[in-house]
Amino acid sequence: MAEKLKPPRGFRDFPPEVAILRREVISRVVRVIEKYGFDPLDTPSIEHWETLAGKYGEEAESRLIWRFTDPWSGREYALRYDLTVPLARFIAGRPDIGLPFKRYHIGPVWRHEEPQKGRYREFYQCDADIVGSPYPEADAEIINLTVDAIRELGFTEFKVKLNDRRLLAGIFEEELGLDNPLHVYRIIDKLDKIGFEGVIGELSKAGLSKSLVERITEIISHRGEPLEELSPLCLKYGGNSRVSEACKHLEEAVELLNDVTMVELDMSLVRGLDYYTGPIVEVVLKKPSIGSVAGGGRYDNLIGLFTGKHIPATGVSLGIERLIDAGIELGIYKASRKTVTQVQVIVLDWSLLKHAWTTVKTLRDAGVNTRIDLVRANEDSQRRKARRLEIPLLVYIGVEEVKNNTVTIYDTRTGERKVVPREGLVKIVEETLAKPLLGERP
Amino acid sequence: MAEKLKPPRGFRDFPPEVAILRREVISRVVRVIEKYGFDPLDTPSIEHWETLAGKYGEEAESRLIWRFTDPWSGREYALRYDLTVPLARFIAGRPDIGLPFKRYHIGPVWRHEEPQKGRYREFYQCDADIVGSPYPEADAEIINLTVDAIRELGFTEFKVKLNDRRLLAGIFEEELGLDNPLHVYRIIDKLDKIGFEGVIGELSKAGLSKSLVERITEIISHRGEPLEELSPLCLKYGGNSRVSEACKHLEEAVELLNDVTMVELDMSLVRGLDYYTGPIVEVVLKKPSIGSVAGGGRYDNLIGLFTGKHIPATGVSLGIERLIDAGIELGIYKASRKTVTQVQVIVLDWSLLKHAWTTVKTLRDAGVNTRIDLVRANEDSQRRKARRLEIPLLVYIGVEEVKNNTVTIYDTRTGERKVVPREGLVKIVEETLAKPLLGERP
Repeated sequence: MAEKLKPPRGFRDFPPEVAILRREVISRVVRVIEKYGFDPLDTPSIEHWETLAGKYGEEAESRLIWRFTDPWSGREYALRYDLTVPLARFIAGRPDIGLPFKRYHIGPVWRHEEPQKGRYREFYQCDADIVGSPYPEADAEIINLTVDAIRELGFTEFKVKLNDRRLLAGIFEEELGLDNPLHVYRIIDKLDKIGFEGVIGELSKAGLSKSLVERITEIISHRGEPLEELSPLCLKYGGNSRVSEACKHLEEAVELLNDVTMVELDMSLVRGLDYYTGPIVEVVLKKPSIGSVAGGGRYDNLIGLFTGKHIPATGVSLGIERLIDAGIELGIYKASRKTVTQVQVIVLDWSLLKHAWTTVKTLRDAGVNTRIDLVRANEDSQRRKARRLEIPLLVYIGVEEVKNNTVTIYDTRTGERKVVPREGLVKIVEETLAKPLLGERP
Repeated sequence: MAEKLKPPRGFRDFPPEVAILRREVISRVVRVIEKYGFDPLDTPSIEHWETLAGKYGEEAESRLIWRFTDPWSGREYALRYDLTVPLARFIAGRPDIGLPFKRYHIGPVWRHEEPQKGRYREFYQCDADIVGSPYPEADAEIINLTVDAIRELGFTEFKVKLNDRRLLAGIFEEELGLDNPLHVYRIIDKLDKIGFEGVIGELSKAGLSKSLVERITEIISHRGEPLEELSPLCLKYGGNSRVSEACKHLEEAVELLNDVTMVELDMSLVRGLDYYTGPIVEVVLKKPSIGSVAGGGRYDNLIGLFTGKHIPATGVSLGIERLIDAGIELGIYKASRKTVTQVQVIVLDWSLLKHAWTTVKTLRDAGVNTRIDLVRANEDSQRRKARRLEIPLLVYIGVEEVKNNTVTIYDTRTGERKVVPREGLVKIVEETLAKPLLGERP
């Protein structure tokens, strides 16, 4: 395809077979999120640059955020980089909003990434956040929702990795005398990509001594059943106030998990963004190896950056794009449904157009998704187009049918054909469409 | 509110009570569009500048399109200005796509307008287009869909204005010797804003003679029942090939309208965009006076701009934003539903949290949207928050209830309170929620 007919690099068109699947995935996620009592909140695509500045860390700010100067006003704008900072800006501006405030938001975000498999410059995030609760039950609710949503999407083999920024920070403080370990986190965050050896190399390059590097790698190797892994750490470092806070918080949250077997404490989990302050989570599928499919955590200080007023918050972002890619790779999803159309009315003689038009209207008025050919094609061509789209039912209208006040219904799935009186059409179409076919997905 | 806590000028936050309404409106429109056999297609928010350049006319290009240079690659990008040109780019790049291709797309577009009531810099469009049919039945289907969708949204008093670019061009050619009347169209397009006197003034300023201006105003005054208005014009100017094509096309289309009383021929309708080539439509509500709430038409040459291959197309864009604003003003809609939550579980004693948590899980697993307080508030505060959100059912869990293995259900809409066995909870909640209350919207 000529370059000029493609979207810009890292951007995508979603033709119907993909758009139909994406919509189905999103609507399933919405169902789960709403069961958890979250309501929709939409914030705009564009924010003032100042709103995003200083929130995500150096790499995002210098390179990944789509930032541009409005040529008319000279103001600096940015396309949203995630859905969390705009939420924080919204909350800060609405002191009247009732807390806790539970919202979800599904929409595109923009990142100036180098495009590659599974990495796009425009991609959807699906966020659920609880604003106003400092308690572990809020974090537990987020984890339960995450597990339910990913299961609802058809995945069974995955793990929720759990850690707490305070646990890490406290242990680093005790063991390494590091008060602000953000630069160390950024290196550890690359573990999935560069492996343990790579992390050791980068830590050394960053100027940390061999013994420090060894202690860090020892700490981040802890991984397993949450309470089992926690208890020795909490015992050993419990004198540190950050560690003891984290231990109490995580223990209470774990108590409220619907299925603790899905969760493991993983001390190597740090999350890339600067704004996390407490529990952090990330979901990885057993296969395919596609990176994390959800991630989130507690960010108690983010909203305060806008107003100075401390408002705790916690949330998760589901990676719709990767979940869809993974689902297709695993064979859970097929981007195969080419149309939502249920009936194609086939006109055998174009002098009967007005007659057929009325039948189409009757079906549509009854809620049946119906097409009629719009290029006056012959019967064969009409049928081939309907077949190509895999439209389940064909309704034939010809001279015979008009004379006898009937229509002929052909079920492309079973090959069954029947002639029915016109006034019975809607009922029979509805029944035929409702009947699940042997082996068909409901 | 401090300036820095607001979205940029012309951009909006949609808090839950607005987002819930918007979603409902959009889902109703989707239902109608899908009944007409259209499938979703999504194209990206950002296009290469060249894709949009030369498609919309001078004002859009020089001022209204959000255009920016990517600081990294130096490439010129633009936020999409409508959903039609990206569709044309998509179709041009997919010669394998089956025609006619019927797609819809609902999403934001960006225009660098001066923000004012009903005019935003980011707003949603909802487009349905038929690509590949040159026939009047395609235009008729678009008009029928438009009328159905706007009725489905609750509006009854509106008109579809209909005209044809060929009709205008042909008559202008005959009467005025104007071969390319685009500059005249742009002035006529302001009729709603500046009135007949204003149009006359601007036409004169543009250098047209008094008699030309008079003839133009006479022509654009034709307005009424489509076939009645058409027939004298077609008779008088039928020798002009553009007029005769338009007459035949419009007459055939009108024959296929489900409700011709909703449609009037209006010779002052020109539409602002350059790319229209045939029938054009615009929908105006009787009140409030809010401008057009839908608009569209045939653009047979747009796709060819990309490939040189002639592919006819016709479509409509529903103005979701204005329809919502108008619906609120008319009292058809209320942005009053504050939450989708159906049940608030009220915990009378926080030592029972785990017990209550299980009840919440039971309700959620049964598909009931359920909240539980996440800040360990006292009963009074829990109830007040639920009331504020107008959550219909409260389910109380206290020491009594746990002891007797019951729960207490309180219906905030009727004031009815009942104690029910725990195992019967889901069934009773479902029944109570399903029962429509007297006077309640279904």
